[in-house]
Amino acid sequence: MVINVTRTLFVCVVLGQSMVAAELMPLPLKMTPGEGKLRIESTFGAAITGYSDARLVSAAARFVRQIAKQTGIPIAPGNFDKTLTIDCHEAGPAVPDLGEDESYRLDVTEGHASLQSASVTGALRGLATLVQLIGTSTEVPGIHIEDRPRFSWRGLMLDVSRHWMPVEVVERNLDAMAAVKLNVFHWHLSDDQGFRVESKRFPKLQRLSSDGNYYTQDEIRHVIDYARDRGIRVIPEFDVPGHATSLLAAYPELGSAPGPYSIERRWGIFKPTLDPTREETYAFLDAFFEEMAALFPDRFFHIGGDEVDDTQWKNSRAIQKFAQEHHLADSRALHGYFNGRVQALLKKYGKSIIGWDEIFGPDLGRDAVIQSWRGGASLAEAANKGYRGVLSFGYYLDHLKPASEHYRADPLGIAPNETARILGGEACMWSEYVSQDTVDSRIWPRAAAIAERLWSPREVTDIDSMYRRLESVSSLLDWTGVEHRSNYQRMLDRLGGGESLRILADASEASGIEVRQKARQYTSLVPLNRFVDAVRPESQGVRRLEQEARRLTANHGGESSELSVAFTVWARNDARLRPPAELAALSKNLSTVGSTGLLALNYLRTGQAPPDGWIAEQIRALDGMQKPDAEVILAAPRPLRLLLNALAENSKK
Amino acid sequence: MVINVTRTLFVCVVLGQSMVAAELMPLPLKMTPGEGKLRIESTFGAAITGYSDARLVSAAARFVRQIAKQTGIPIAPGNFDKTLTIDCHEAGPAVPDLGEDESYRLDVTEGHASLQSASVTGALRGLATLVQLIGTSTEVPGIHIEDRPRFSWRGLMLDVSRHWMPVEVVERNLDAMAAVKLNVFHWHLSDDQGFRVESKRFPKLQRLSSDGNYYTQDEIRHVIDYARDRGIRVIPEFDVPGHATSLLAAYPELGSAPGPYSIERRWGIFKPTLDPTREETYAFLDAFFEEMAALFPDRFFHIGGDEVDDTQWKNSRAIQKFAQEHHLADSRALHGYFNGRVQALLKKYGKSIIGWDEIFGPDLGRDAVIQSWRGGASLAEAANKGYRGVLSFGYYLDHLKPASEHYRADPLGIAPNETARILGGEACMWSEYVSQDTVDSRIWPRAAAIAERLWSPREVTDIDSMYRRLESVSSLLDWTGVEHRSNYQRMLDRLGGGESLRILADASEASGIEVRQKARQYTSLVPLNRFVDAVRPESQGVRRLEQEARRLTANHGGESSELSVAFTVWARNDARLRPPAELAALSKNLSTVGSTGLLALNYLRTGQAPPDGWIAEQIRALDGMQKPDAEVILAAPRPLRLLLNALAENSKK
Repeated sequence: MVINVTRTLFVCVVLGQSMVAAELMPLPLKMTPGEGKLRIESTFGAAITGYSDARLVSAAARFVRQIAKQTGIPIAPGNFDKTLTIDCHEAGPAVPDLGEDESYRLDVTEGHASLQSASVTGALRGLATLVQLIGTSTEVPGIHIEDRPRFSWRGLMLDVSRHWMPVEVVERNLDAMAAVKLNVFHWHLSDDQGFRVESKRFPKLQRLSSDGNYYTQDEIRHVIDYARDRGIRVIPEFDVPGHATSLLAAYPELGSAPGPYSIERRWGIFKPTLDPTREETYAFLDAFFEEMAALFPDRFFHIGGDEVDDTQWKNSRAIQKFAQEHHLADSRALHGYFNGRVQALLKKYGKSIIGWDEIFGPDLGRDAVIQSWRGGASLAEAANKGYRGVLSFGYYLDHLKPASEHYRADPLGIAPNETARILGGEACMWSEYVSQDTVDSRIWPRAAAIAERLWSPREVTDIDSMYRRLESVSSLLDWTGVEHRSNYQRMLDRLGGGESLRILADASEASGIEVRQKARQYTSLVPLNRFVDAVRPESQGVRRLEQEARRLTANHGGESSELSVAFTVWARNDARLRPPAELAALSKNLSTVGSTGLLALNYLRTGQAPPDGWIAEQIRALDGMQKPDAEVILAAPRPLRLLLNALAENSKK
Repeated sequence: MVINVTRTLFVCVVLGQSMVAAELMPLPLKMTPGEGKLRIESTFGAAITGYSDARLVSAAARFVRQIAKQTGIPIAPGNFDKTLTIDCHEAGPAVPDLGEDESYRLDVTEGHASLQSASVTGALRGLATLVQLIGTSTEVPGIHIEDRPRFSWRGLMLDVSRHWMPVEVVERNLDAMAAVKLNVFHWHLSDDQGFRVESKRFPKLQRLSSDGNYYTQDEIRHVIDYARDRGIRVIPEFDVPGHATSLLAAYPELGSAPGPYSIERRWGIFKPTLDPTREETYAFLDAFFEEMAALFPDRFFHIGGDEVDDTQWKNSRAIQKFAQEHHLADSRALHGYFNGRVQALLKKYGKSIIGWDEIFGPDLGRDAVIQSWRGGASLAEAANKGYRGVLSFGYYLDHLKPASEHYRADPLGIAPNETARILGGEACMWSEYVSQDTVDSRIWPRAAAIAERLWSPREVTDIDSMYRRLESVSSLLDWTGVEHRSNYQRMLDRLGGGESLRILADASEASGIEVRQKARQYTSLVPLNRFVDAVRPESQGVRRLEQEARRLTANHGGESSELSVAFTVWARNDARLRPPAELAALSKNLSTVGSTGLLALNYLRTGQAPPDGWIAEQIRALDGMQKPDAEVILAAPRPLRLLLNALAENSKK
């Protein structure tokens, strides 16, 4: 019997305390409950019984450390108990590779776990599953799992140009990626606002274009090794010919207009663009790509290619003349010519290119991969024409949309038959509105929902199940080192305000780029240390209260201690907080929701009807409260709205 | 004018939000308010204008990174602005040394900060002060500070034997130590439960006596460098001749009774003891000390020497014969003989010994330092006889006493005239009841109060001021990387229970070793992952409520939103939590406190008298609740008790 994978919950009781085992995300292809159970004790040991190498040995040691951390059980690294046996058939590719075998089988039986895989990467995936099965509990019920990914390209893009992300940020996010089986780290290393890689050949890049914030080549090799150990490919992106202001700040002679250029501090699309008509440009790129191709082992190399502003091209007589001579009808054709040259350069160094939507054109070589960000249609079109593609439209984490929206986006949504060419998807974390302190909470836990979309069977779509498991995984990710949870209180403490500021923050949701870019003039020098930067994209607490409101109204009344405590605390919070000016309205609204909520609960409990017009008036008030304020949206009205709707229903009867 | 140093609070408003500047801990010797203010902006730069070396350059870079982190202001490392000038006279000792000059002067004026010091270590101390002055705010008001420590030995001892502490735990605690100007890291590296150092000469030590949990020599060198960069001495302790079971597990032939021995898993004082009568013992120690003396550069070397159980000595005919021949009247004399031999060995390698109380005896060479743990009297006695001493009695963090108790213990408390010989003090973190996950919250923030006792003028004794500043420093320490705050929610999440478990934890205080050792049979294999391990030693929230209760009763009634929200939430918490069996009584008691609290508030507000006997009955109930339960003590009754006392007073009038 294959159990309903979306409804599994393990609870066990240890030392008189209930410890909740984490649920799985992404869900495996197949899970069958088994006999017996595995107890995690201080004698736990992992033994490699088949193929072995340094990568597998360190993965097994990391696994033991991780479960010791999560469970709190002191497990010595020198243990010889074969509690877990790892039977791996062969190494697999030396560097994680597109389409490699990631499958595994995992059996938990009485006192034992057994993991089998074709490759080391498969073993890594199985260990990630076992880490989640164990969670923070000390017992794992028997289970049989067979698993492999639906898509072979499951990525996370991180923009380290707009806001600098030190190596430790990358490391901890690689750990979290591995925990949810993401396998491509797409490293957006250059943009208008900074060039983040040390070049030995072109040292002006780091000297003049990075503000001192760049990765040395040693650090890059370290990150690649770190990722490889976790079965993650590293794909560098150097964005050309647009989004290249920082490059031109170091080498203005490569621009389509005379310099000088300086590092861009604003956000947007800017005019500085490489000159696609001069051989010097290609000579530079040739030498630079050669250096970078040797540094990054992956066979794909990302050339960006998005949002090319053609003003400089149009204004340059030389460029226009060149275009005419080469029968390049318009800027798009010129861009296509540029891409063709770049593609040829990289081919010399054994690389296939990947680029954003805009690189797609008639002259593009067939081995290119299109990363679709402007819509699913372009992905479908590329696939129809024989190109491989990766979906990012729908996976833009910087919009701070609910996880459920990302979860609904499917790479095969528009082109269901192109399974061979649509390789998967990539969550994108653009960094206009995140810093190294806030980025984790903008990636996690929502990226885990995307990870499930890309790994698990297409039929896994239950939103409630997803959210329940997301909460569990979020709490587990905390033990991998990402700071999406630990940074929250720290950032609120910075603002003063104590417990009552936290209560306001818990009931609020941060807005994404769409709201923030209109709210004020941001640049890379504006600190991201305000309330909106601390507040999470989704309020877990309010989601629970919504569930509670649904339960209550489905039962036609009764008591809800959860709702009544929350409303009481909210009602009094404004008086306790004495909020700063920016948060005055938000805080007042929260207390209004609380007071109204207490009244609504009372009407529901007593069955007494509210005065005429009261419900409509409250709903209108809520409408006003659910607009962005201080770049934040109050989530608190949502459960109250459910109660008011129920009261309205009741009054119709 | 010298301002009252215990009453300084800076508040500033940034971006419409109040950001509270951290207050100083330890308080400096002298502080005078000045003109103007310094704004922290993204152009901030630190320039070294006097003596410079690698240690100072890295300290300046670390300083800039730290304030960028705390404030959230993006400051590029390549900035050339001379916002801060550091004028250091000379290097000072190559390795941080006892009694080195740590003084500095710091001036904050309009748009500028200027730091002057005699040595690099002095500059480090000044930078630590400036980090706190800035706190999380973006403006520092003008100030002039002159500062130097009261004691030159300000230590933290960490026991890494009973529970293993990986390098990252040590690193982050060194960062926190430096932040509060502690300058001695006393590394308790061996004990019955594990030998934690790699020895090239005696590899069985790590192979047989560590369970695989030990520091390689490379790691030790790294930690020493890391500490040196932060102006912290590293003193290794190898505990001999007692507390040596793990050593004997590797080299049983050195024992006072025939082996075999195995690593001890229990806590306590055990019989295995080195044989002080055989030359083989000293040959081993000579070779081992030679190796370790070369590894650890500090001129002090800790030989432990505490709690020697002499059963094996008394039972050995050979040892007794030796004692007789050498006129060693009793075990104490035998121990003294051993210490003399050990002291001579270490002298060969340029080391002075330091040891616990018990090493003090007639034959001890005068350069030995006595670390007093059994009482201040032994410290005074040693000082009287011309020995130097360090106080640890009163600074045992593992007792989980309130910070105020440690704060009241003064190294010169018993021997006020021995200023030359009493070098300072050391906070001790024994690790029977802490793991790598919980240790930070048992050290911090309380160790900061001890740091102030050891650095600041003796007259700085205001407990309220200390607690207010401790709270501020605790929140700032969060940004150095110690996990005393971030681990709290993570550990509670592990237990399930959500928000209501946190409410119970917030209102509770964990018990220390004295309660825990009686509560159940602990060993090194018993997980420290229960409620008591998450709960903090002191409840900041309850302390605030006590203040609020004092304010309210001093005003003879009125409203208190804080108290009324807290009591309401507590009153309903038990129903929400549905606690596990272990916490059932605790949770029920919390709700009782809440309900009673609401009644008490009502009596106070209305002036209505409670029924006869009600107050006495409630106070009796509270007495019962304030006993350890589940190794935890409910703190919640404390503010209620104040209200009840006030009602009792009122009823007398």
